[in-house]
Amino acid sequence: MTIRYRAFLGDSKSFIEDYISSLDFDKRLTKYVAMVMLAHVKVLENSGHIPKEYVQNIVKELIDIVKTDGEKIYKWIEEKKVKFEDIFEAIESYLYDVVDGGAGYIALGRSRNDHVAAVLRLYARDVLYNILYNLIELRKALLEKASEYRSTIFPFFTHQQLAQCGSAALYFLSYEYTLSTVWRHLLQLLDILSENPLGSGAAAGTVVPLDIGLLSKYLCFKQGVLPPYYATGSRLFLLSLVSGIVLFMGELSRMAEDLISMNCIIPYAIEFPVEHISTSSIMPHKRNLVTLEIARSKISKIVGLYTSMLSIYKSIPYGYNLDLQELNRIFMDIVSDTISTLNVFIDIIKGIKINEDKIIKYVEDKPCWSSDVVEYIAITKGKPVREIYFQIARQLKSYRQNGDTLSKILLNIGIQPNNVWNIIKSRPIEMYIKKMIEGAWRILEEDRKLVKDSLESIESCRAELISEPRQV
Amino acid sequence: MTIRYRAFLGDSKSFIEDYISSLDFDKRLTKYVAMVMLAHVKVLENSGHIPKEYVQNIVKELIDIVKTDGEKIYKWIEEKKVKFEDIFEAIESYLYDVVDGGAGYIALGRSRNDHVAAVLRLYARDVLYNILYNLIELRKALLEKASEYRSTIFPFFTHQQLAQCGSAALYFLSYEYTLSTVWRHLLQLLDILSENPLGSGAAAGTVVPLDIGLLSKYLCFKQGVLPPYYATGSRLFLLSLVSGIVLFMGELSRMAEDLISMNCIIPYAIEFPVEHISTSSIMPHKRNLVTLEIARSKISKIVGLYTSMLSIYKSIPYGYNLDLQELNRIFMDIVSDTISTLNVFIDIIKGIKINEDKIIKYVEDKPCWSSDVVEYIAITKGKPVREIYFQIARQLKSYRQNGDTLSKILLNIGIQPNNVWNIIKSRPIEMYIKKMIEGAWRILEEDRKLVKDSLESIESCRAELISEPRQV
Amino acid sequence: MTIRYRAFLGDSKSFIEDYISSLDFDKRLTKYVAMVMLAHVKVLENSGHIPKEYVQNIVKELIDIVKTDGEKIYKWIEEKKVKFEDIFEAIESYLYDVVDGGAGYIALGRSRNDHVAAVLRLYARDVLYNILYNLIELRKALLEKASEYRSTIFPFFTHQQLAQCGSAALYFLSYEYTLSTVWRHLLQLLDILSENPLGSGAAAGTVVPLDIGLLSKYLCFKQGVLPPYYATGSRLFLLSLVSGIVLFMGELSRMAEDLISMNCIIPYAIEFPVEHISTSSIMPHKRNLVTLEIARSKISKIVGLYTSMLSIYKSIPYGYNLDLQELNRIFMDIVSDTISTLNVFIDIIKGIKINEDKIIKYVEDKPCWSSDVVEYIAITKGKPVREIYFQIARQLKSYRQNGDTLSKILLNIGIQPNNVWNIIKSRPIEMYIKKMIEGAWRILEEDRKLVKDSLESIESCRAELISEPRQV
Amino acid sequence: MTIRYRAFLGDSKSFIEDYISSLDFDKRLTKYVAMVMLAHVKVLENSGHIPKEYVQNIVKELIDIVKTDGEKIYKWIEEKKVKFEDIFEAIESYLYDVVDGGAGYIALGRSRNDHVAAVLRLYARDVLYNILYNLIELRKALLEKASEYRSTIFPFFTHQQLAQCGSAALYFLSYEYTLSTVWRHLLQLLDILSENPLGSGAAAGTVVPLDIGLLSKYLCFKQGVLPPYYATGSRLFLLSLVSGIVLFMGELSRMAEDLISMNCIIPYAIEFPVEHISTSSIMPHKRNLVTLEIARSKISKIVGLYTSMLSIYKSIPYGYNLDLQELNRIFMDIVSDTISTLNVFIDIIKGIKINEDKIIKYVEDKPCWSSDVVEYIAITKGKPVREIYFQIARQLKSYRQNGDTLSKILLNIGIQPNNVWNIIKSRPIEMYIKKMIEGAWRILEEDRKLVKDSLESIESCRAELISEPRQV
Repeated sequence: MTIRYRAFLGDSKSFIEDYISSLDFDKRLTKYVAMVMLAHVKVLENSGHIPKEYVQNIVKELIDIVKTDGEKIYKWIEEKKVKFEDIFEAIESYLYDVVDGGAGYIALGRSRNDHVAAVLRLYARDVLYNILYNLIELRKALLEKASEYRSTIFPFFTHQQLAQCGSAALYFLSYEYTLSTVWRHLLQLLDILSENPLGSGAAAGTVVPLDIGLLSKYLCFKQGVLPPYYATGSRLFLLSLVSGIVLFMGELSRMAEDLISMNCIIPYAIEFPVEHISTSSIMPHKRNLVTLEIARSKISKIVGLYTSMLSIYKSIPYGYNLDLQELNRIFMDIVSDTISTLNVFIDIIKGIKINEDKIIKYVEDKPCWSSDVVEYIAITKGKPVREIYFQIARQLKSYRQNGDTLSKILLNIGIQPNNVWNIIKSRPIEMYIKKMIEGAWRILEEDRKLVKDSLESIESCRAELISEPRQV
Repeated sequence: MTIRYRAFLGDSKSFIEDYISSLDFDKRLTKYVAMVMLAHVKVLENSGHIPKEYVQNIVKELIDIVKTDGEKIYKWIEEKKVKFEDIFEAIESYLYDVVDGGAGYIALGRSRNDHVAAVLRLYARDVLYNILYNLIELRKALLEKASEYRSTIFPFFTHQQLAQCGSAALYFLSYEYTLSTVWRHLLQLLDILSENPLGSGAAAGTVVPLDIGLLSKYLCFKQGVLPPYYATGSRLFLLSLVSGIVLFMGELSRMAEDLISMNCIIPYAIEFPVEHISTSSIMPHKRNLVTLEIARSKISKIVGLYTSMLSIYKSIPYGYNLDLQELNRIFMDIVSDTISTLNVFIDIIKGIKINEDKIIKYVEDKPCWSSDVVEYIAITKGKPVREIYFQIARQLKSYRQNGDTLSKILLNIGIQPNNVWNIIKSRPIEMYIKKMIEGAWRILEEDRKLVKDSLESIESCRAELISEPRQV
Repeated sequence: MTIRYRAFLGDSKSFIEDYISSLDFDKRLTKYVAMVMLAHVKVLENSGHIPKEYVQNIVKELIDIVKTDGEKIYKWIEEKKVKFEDIFEAIESYLYDVVDGGAGYIALGRSRNDHVAAVLRLYARDVLYNILYNLIELRKALLEKASEYRSTIFPFFTHQQLAQCGSAALYFLSYEYTLSTVWRHLLQLLDILSENPLGSGAAAGTVVPLDIGLLSKYLCFKQGVLPPYYATGSRLFLLSLVSGIVLFMGELSRMAEDLISMNCIIPYAIEFPVEHISTSSIMPHKRNLVTLEIARSKISKIVGLYTSMLSIYKSIPYGYNLDLQELNRIFMDIVSDTISTLNVFIDIIKGIKINEDKIIKYVEDKPCWSSDVVEYIAITKGKPVREIYFQIARQLKSYRQNGDTLSKILLNIGIQPNNVWNIIKSRPIEMYIKKMIEGAWRILEEDRKLVKDSLESIESCRAELISEPRQV
Repeated sequence: MTIRYRAFLGDSKSFIEDYISSLDFDKRLTKYVAMVMLAHVKVLENSGHIPKEYVQNIVKELIDIVKTDGEKIYKWIEEKKVKFEDIFEAIESYLYDVVDGGAGYIALGRSRNDHVAAVLRLYARDVLYNILYNLIELRKALLEKASEYRSTIFPFFTHQQLAQCGSAALYFLSYEYTLSTVWRHLLQLLDILSENPLGSGAAAGTVVPLDIGLLSKYLCFKQGVLPPYYATGSRLFLLSLVSGIVLFMGELSRMAEDLISMNCIIPYAIEFPVEHISTSSIMPHKRNLVTLEIARSKISKIVGLYTSMLSIYKSIPYGYNLDLQELNRIFMDIVSDTISTLNVFIDIIKGIKINEDKIIKYVEDKPCWSSDVVEYIAITKGKPVREIYFQIARQLKSYRQNGDTLSKILLNIGIQPNNVWNIIKSRPIEMYIKKMIEGAWRILEEDRKLVKDSLESIESCRAELISEPRQV
């Protein structure tokens, strides 16, 4: 037997059922749906709203779904050849089919609207933990490189042209700092992902007196009651998460641009792990940084998809609309590209090597010391910096036009060419690198502990939820 | 045996191969890849660049791929358990494996860059024909409704409020006109989709003297040689097509908003085919227009994805970059949502019925005649229209505040209430409806013929291409 | 005299200078630029890097710029008829022109790159305070309405159709809750907006030993040193702020859709302040909610502009690129639309009145009680809720087809029609409204205090910065 | 005296009037509004709907507005200190104030909805002509460079790495070809921009029998009647134009990326006109290609704004909504950035010089001939190309690892190093360049004539419209 909510509406058509059904991408939600139903059934049992005799079988089936990601359900759906609207309808129908009785009681005090809002939070919270962990791995890889190349000369660009030279550590520290900033921003989203929307009915509440506190306990949600229209109609929690994803992905895209750019401008200055390189089917000399090309494109895709989400969301009045279902589909696409892209970056950063000699060779005929020398003369001679600036500007113009050597220019302005690196290394920030690296490691360890503790508490209450019912 | 272009590069990792490979979504391109290779092999044979004895087997295999959508290839790939970079590498490798010899000659005078540019045009051209046909079906459905409800009273809104009443035909004609405008815009894209990029090598041409004209003939491309950097590095043809898709989808989204809106404001004024309606799992009274909710969301998604495409495209220097591969993936997502959404609209428009009585009941206490009456008095009495406007504005203010009836207001200004419909029906545009419908049908038939003829010519040269090689 | 950095580069053209100059939109940054220069000059003075005799005049001019928003500068620019690249070049040039000496020392230990990063943070921080205050006003207006209409019957929609009835307070509480969630998210951004990027040179640091701690003190920045490439090349702080803006604007857009929708579906159920309504130039009966139409469009515009920002940002390698200047222009457009839109919402929410009688009249022939009655029967009779659901679904089908009255249906299923409201009001959430309102007020007051204290501390250190230099 | 349509609605507030008024950006529409009113008044006069005695003064005022861009109107508005809703209300009010009588007749048979639809088409058509002309200038500049550097060696990239060498002409021809393709696409939009929406009333027609054909003649519109809901509610014509703009701007963005990239990878290979370069305020050696940085950012901005337009448009039901007014504002921003960006590209392309020696020096240690040599050997020796490919791949691997010279590799495979350029130059496409350039010039001249003739016909009917009324 199958239960269809549309039983009293009328016929359907196959291509339309495909169009509106979410069953295909609900797969990733299946276990969370079962968790929420499990908590719900336990609470109904607790308050006597479902006859005790039915509970055990239902609970057993739901635990099985959680543990196997709904393996049996999907086999059953295939056998039945029914295009369910979504996994909620499918599971309810399945329970009707496989348990002796009681399935009809489950829909009490719930709607798909509040349940899906709970399910999505559980799913998104797990996604967030995954991202937080991966970001910690990436930050770790960056800090390792910062330590390894603490005083290796590295080119720093503005306007995609060599601007200054400095220690490579500063490059890696910049990205690690950025990611740690976004990391803390993301961590705070655990809060909105732990709100409990259950008990909100379709839009304005249920008449069934549910024990909301107990539901929260089962599902590791925060205590507290939400306004039901918000609980069922809002997807702020999803948009907030994607908004955070977009922020760090934007930074990774710039890192991809950096590395692809370096690879053209100073070939072999950075050696990349060979797995990230492809060649051409016709030009055997090509060594293309293909993972990074894919990465920056996927990030553009995510930005566009976030626009889609915002555009969908902002145009619908409050309350649940099926438009929200499309948000889920888009969200899952974003998640999958995000996780794989993070793994690509972790792998590439871990694997890169810097060849300082290539960099030194590249910079030797480029005055990447111009601002340092201007400042150095200004402070040592006590002269107005702008005056020195124009003096050197004049010299460099002549360098370009008459082919003077840089050494000659330096000598003209009273600097020994081999003293240039000392001037650069005398920057206060260069002295400070060691301290910055140490500080960053310390914060990284704190962050790792934070997320570990938080996840363990989630896992322990989840274990409790799916523990087999006590035998009577 | 398998051929990997990266053979001399070094190792790979499975998750990275997944990340950069396009094999999963190349499935839809497989037959077009085989067509292009087929044409290429025939041309190489013709110019003696591939030994005749090898040609027959290769051609046979390629024709088989075209005809079965690469069924054997995909089985073979599964057996080999190799993660090919793309379908080009896979097919070349497959041919090495299954034909006696000659596979090594195929890569002559081609690169993946010019071949994929040809393949995508063939695929996109077929997509365009599909869209053109579906749009004609939709326009037909709209014209049928325009004819059916030629003089049925219908509400016309501005600012989402009733503005004027008029014949329902004008509603359907408006959308049909819009779609026919975009249709002609789309039709012109057949031109850019019929350019022949072959012979362009990787970026700047091949040294092999290929018979470009013969290649064009085999693949139903236009004659003419493209600048090779354009041929391999541009995706203007894809963006142009999506840009056209976005334009008509934007219009359909507004139609979805119209119908959803009507369904709330004047329930049952339009009766929708039941297949497009879902109900609630907990509120049995709900009749939600779910296909249209999904449709407008999918259209927002497409808009976002188009942004992604533009953002990817505009940021890469010219020449092929693997970013272009992500464009293909996005393009295919857009195509699939576009076709299914078109089918949903065709089905819903064909199925709707208008209940004029519901509309008349709705408008009877709303002065949807206000502009008509203002103008009518102005022209019949020769008075300044602005004067009449302010006079009626004053009356309507009192109507709202004192609860006067609309009839009384009409009588106050010298209009018999039952004359209002006559005034409305006297609008010149109302007289013109019959002519507009006839004209629209005429154009529709011309358009249908245009696309039919054009497609037939494509199909005939395709049949020629895959005809079995003559037995020697 | 005017100083141009491009003095040794060569000529310029007027239309190109217009194209690359930011002077037109730098106006809003002028006072912040002067603040940063002021702090910088004081620190240079302190460390003896600028001769004391010059300092007083420079400081006086800079304080004047802060206090008058650069009034004198802009007059001077107009007189000079020079198209400066930006306000930095203009101020430096101005100081050369008007102070006796010393202007040439100012550029020591700074670049436009680290200075503009500081300036933008100061500006964005002030913008954020403005937004935080306005959001508190809006939340206050919503809570006042929640209190005022605590038990007024209100329609709750799903799929843009009446789903349930409940107290109007729940509507206002939902939005207030959403906004308070985003509010806290925004508050945390004060942190990233208080980072001190000074001392970072163009990309990798300055050789001048600046007292960063003192700079932070003068500018109310956090203590701590940033990696210089991050400090000068990142705009994460801007994107984070816009990302937060987009989140609450998305919610306001939905509120606009709600109100426009209600205005069509149940005219006069909500009475809007007349200032937000326009009429037609030709249909005097029209009452269009024009501010809300503009609002939702401006919000779409902001979403698009955020995409622009992300797309610009993600495509440029690290380090300063002039692309970042375009981000500023876009940011300012977003800010200005955000503030005006917030004010529109504050005004409209304060001014709306709910006419409960219109709502009751609207719902009386619509079974907005269906889920409640299903649940009520299920729990009172202890029957499976799905069984009752199908029973009522059948009844409602017949209601639609045979024209039965809703009262008859209720009686059929054993419910006294006039008992329906009691059932609805018996929802646990309805009992809980008072507590929710009280809790929300409490948090609002805490939030208001938080932002007030924080802003006062900023203002006090700013007052210190621009206090007139002590007479010697 | 001032006329306000909201006279009978009630009060207003200044900040709200600012929020909803379009007066600030209507400035660019003023003359077109006057043109449409002029045509309308003449047609009303013709049909006797406005007393002859009033016409002359009104017509004179309107012609003055057209000729002076509404100079007097804007002075008058300033004096009146009224915040009109838009330029339509302002002009009507102005006429009430300054002509003796007859102003009250003008609103007959028109609404702001059909008039603004006509005005926007006139404005957008003029914009399109401007773009078409500028694109022709740019194409001309590109063709001149193609001719000038017909056989100059130039690097062609894939994956942002040197792929092949070839003649520089192929670079310029690629972009010229792209732009000429979009050009033809844009030209076709003159059609939709010449539709006549007048006579459509607010949404469903006017009762006034207007001579639509005569209106079309006065305004150089096509003959034919539009469905009125389409005429007033559609902005397909604006979106189509922006969609075309986005397409060519995306190509220009890639050209910006090319040039910025070349400037880093092979400094001075292309010499840029100095006006497009800025330097740093602190690093005098910097030569930043700032116009191109701004250009690519502005193009990203335009892409985002197009998303905004689509998102606004797709979410509103049909018929006029004030959201459409925001579209105009966005459209004007896009237009202004488009025109200035086109001018920047025209100027930079005209001014660039290629230094072939720098390019040859750059490529000499890079095997940009690898695919050519592979193919050359394959065809001269009749061997399978894939075999040669792997052979050379092996050699190149050893080149990288053991530091062999490229010459040695070439000799190993039987190629005289100095024969490489001959091989490259033997590509069929290289022989074809002359013909391509000639063909492109021919099409350019045809295109120039097309747009010139078309614009002249517009100008002549415009001259007719604003010719002074005959003295009686």
